[in-house]
Amino acid sequence: MPSFLAPQCLLPDGWADDVVLDIDAAGWIEGVRPLEDPSEPLERLHGPVVPGLIDLHSHAFQRAMAGLAERGSPAGDHFWTWRDAMYRFALALEPEDLVDVARQLYVELLRGGYTCVVEFHYLHNAPDGRPYDALETMSMAVVEASLGAGIGLTHLPTLYRTADFGGAPPLPEQRRFVLEVEALLALRERLEARLADDPDRRTGLALHSLRAVPPGALERTVAAVHRASPDAPVHIHVAEQTAEVDACLAWSRRRPVAWLLDHAPVDARWCLVHATHMSADETAALAATGAVAGLCPTTEANLGDGFFPLRPFLDAGGRFGVGSDANVCVDATEELRLLELGQRLLHRERNVTTRGEARSTGRALLEGALAGGAQAARLAAGSIEAGRRADLVVLDRDHPGLVTRSGDALLDAWIFGPARGAVRDVMVGGRWVVREGRHAGEVHARERYRAALERIAERCG
Amino acid sequence: MPSFLAPQCLLPDGWADDVVLDIDAAGWIEGVRPLEDPSEPLERLHGPVVPGLIDLHSHAFQRAMAGLAERGSPAGDHFWTWRDAMYRFALALEPEDLVDVARQLYVELLRGGYTCVVEFHYLHNAPDGRPYDALETMSMAVVEASLGAGIGLTHLPTLYRTADFGGAPPLPEQRRFVLEVEALLALRERLEARLADDPDRRTGLALHSLRAVPPGALERTVAAVHRASPDAPVHIHVAEQTAEVDACLAWSRRRPVAWLLDHAPVDARWCLVHATHMSADETAALAATGAVAGLCPTTEANLGDGFFPLRPFLDAGGRFGVGSDANVCVDATEELRLLELGQRLLHRERNVTTRGEARSTGRALLEGALAGGAQAARLAAGSIEAGRRADLVVLDRDHPGLVTRSGDALLDAWIFGPARGAVRDVMVGGRWVVREGRHAGEVHARERYRAALERIAERCG
Repeated sequence: MPSFLAPQCLLPDGWADDVVLDIDAAGWIEGVRPLEDPSEPLERLHGPVVPGLIDLHSHAFQRAMAGLAERGSPAGDHFWTWRDAMYRFALALEPEDLVDVARQLYVELLRGGYTCVVEFHYLHNAPDGRPYDALETMSMAVVEASLGAGIGLTHLPTLYRTADFGGAPPLPEQRRFVLEVEALLALRERLEARLADDPDRRTGLALHSLRAVPPGALERTVAAVHRASPDAPVHIHVAEQTAEVDACLAWSRRRPVAWLLDHAPVDARWCLVHATHMSADETAALAATGAVAGLCPTTEANLGDGFFPLRPFLDAGGRFGVGSDANVCVDATEELRLLELGQRLLHRERNVTTRGEARSTGRALLEGALAGGAQAARLAAGSIEAGRRADLVVLDRDHPGLVTRSGDALLDAWIFGPARGAVRDVMVGGRWVVREGRHAGEVHARERYRAALERIAERCG
Repeated sequence: MPSFLAPQCLLPDGWADDVVLDIDAAGWIEGVRPLEDPSEPLERLHGPVVPGLIDLHSHAFQRAMAGLAERGSPAGDHFWTWRDAMYRFALALEPEDLVDVARQLYVELLRGGYTCVVEFHYLHNAPDGRPYDALETMSMAVVEASLGAGIGLTHLPTLYRTADFGGAPPLPEQRRFVLEVEALLALRERLEARLADDPDRRTGLALHSLRAVPPGALERTVAAVHRASPDAPVHIHVAEQTAEVDACLAWSRRRPVAWLLDHAPVDARWCLVHATHMSADETAALAATGAVAGLCPTTEANLGDGFFPLRPFLDAGGRFGVGSDANVCVDATEELRLLELGQRLLHRERNVTTRGEARSTGRALLEGALAGGAQAARLAAGSIEAGRRADLVVLDRDHPGLVTRSGDALLDAWIFGPARGAVRDVMVGGRWVVREGRHAGEVHARERYRAALERIAERCG
């Protein structure tokens, strides 16, 4: 059983010095104890230790198109024009491309401080829209990538049925996303069976959105999944764009979050991704369900979504986590930072997340995202304590931005600058995957990624 | 005369392949020409080449406190509480501390893609408020740091007279900032003499703000400086916080930018730093002067300043550049990115900087900031053409985020992700200061920085 000495360690009840972490052979934290015998042979970690971040919302394939839609256009540019570009790209990926793109992304997410990732996966069918002979072909590409990189994974196969509210048939460019409810349930069961013995990987369910999932299909799918797996996480995109709010109002006379809370059994197993546009009533009602708001600050900024009502949501006891979503950004601290900075710009004040409280904003953001992320991923992660996975991030004590800092000031320096990029070592499930800032597979991953991008570019013309 | 082959190079009229850059012994670009003889012995640069960014607004000493004010407080937290923390810190720095803090900052700015920095310097006096025997002691600490790091510098000694509009005497904690007009002019002349033969360093004038500079002193100082040095840049903080706008209205019945444009000879030599809170008339009037708006997106977000009226300003032909200001961030691309992302969040659309135009947003941001930065620094920088300083940034062609990208898509990938941190080599005035991502002096700089922070921490108790 390997044991490590953490010179400073963020535990559930705060910072502690000289903490011994006992980790069993299966990658679980077996014990957390004070150092009592200084002669005990221990590997001393090279800086402050915090739990690995959980990326609660990712579309891995979009990494390969990150940066390709940063251009103006004569007609103006919005979420929906970006989506057209994304669709064209989605049609070009073969399963082996997805393995190579996702593996590279996951290596980068690990170096950015994440130890597990929730994949909101809707790229089910072959490019021509026909199901693969093995339904799970594209899902297993994602699983294979996560195994290759060594990152924890919650893989959510996504139900996608319609193009808009009211049952509009899917568009031709959505043909890879569309599965019947029964096929989706079968896919989920196969994944559940294949991941049953892996403590760092699990599956669940995603509903693409209220646009893409009619009420009957939503109810039936959630019920079936929770009958089979009562603990399964359920994620859904909701209220990201005002056009979606308007369309939902036109369809149902209710706003999307209100509609969802009225018609679905939303509880602590749920994660509402974005939930950007909520009335005060919706904000309080979402908080009261115990569900997690899945915030994706760099993507929401990139796509011009708008500002999440953070302060009312926190005041109502709401839970949140962060996700890398479109994967323009792979740095966990940038998501946390931009979440707070957006609020500062909006409210013209500082330290909005901790308004009225004498405490560190970096720690409040980190601990909020750890708790919400673990809840949304439904993995035993997010905290350094016995019975959790050994998912650790070691910051580099030699980073100039951490000099003379201790305790919460380390987190403030890491998240707000000047210690950006201070991740030194990363452990997932007891296994070191990043050491001294380098991932053992990074050269291989990069070469395969390059080859995949070249294949895709050739195919796109 | 060293000559280099740039495989791709961003020239004033766009991207060109296989460009030969001839650089003379004094660090000037002597020629830019197509490669005609493939057998010519040339050093081939390791990726796409762009002009070095110009950081048009920095307070170097604040780097050492970056991250120390990211905490809530029971009474709420604003710009003005942050300023109190900054004042306490400013009182603790000795000249040798400033050398060590600024040198480390400048090494990091170089690695972040900046090749010169404009220092808005107001830390003139000794900690007890008495002038140093040599007035230029603290200014020369900054100059020494820039020489040590090898970054270009425009050093602006700052006039600071009063605590608020209407001539309120300076606060005790502002005692290091306060100089008589004559002393400030004398300081500027000494700096001008000392930097006369250095093509990468010059001086100019900063007026701290309308709060700190009464009308008579402003008029007299600007006139005296422009009599002596007609080309000297003049920078001023203006309209950063709404409280300043309110105080200016109470004092003069005019908003700060309107007051300044009415009472000062603002022209293309001026840089108005922040200019966040402007009416539509002020925005158009500022654009018409030809002055540069000095935008500091990461600081303005960190301090909860608000959103700059970018679109109306650009529509009126306004010029802008970016600065690292409080130095929470040392990455030029993050300033450019956050400038655009803040606008996207505010307007709920994408590609605001290039609204209505079919062109790259990354390139529009970069070229805007290069032109505005060079104008505000009044250095022969910001463009790869004969007669300019050889200030170059070479991006790493092996960075996974740049794979299969060319032309403007390289810039979009660098600025918006996925190629963050892709700076490989940096040249300032013909001298390589960063190679393969490393600065030759970075270990020394970091050790000296660490020692300085320990001294400062001890002094602050």
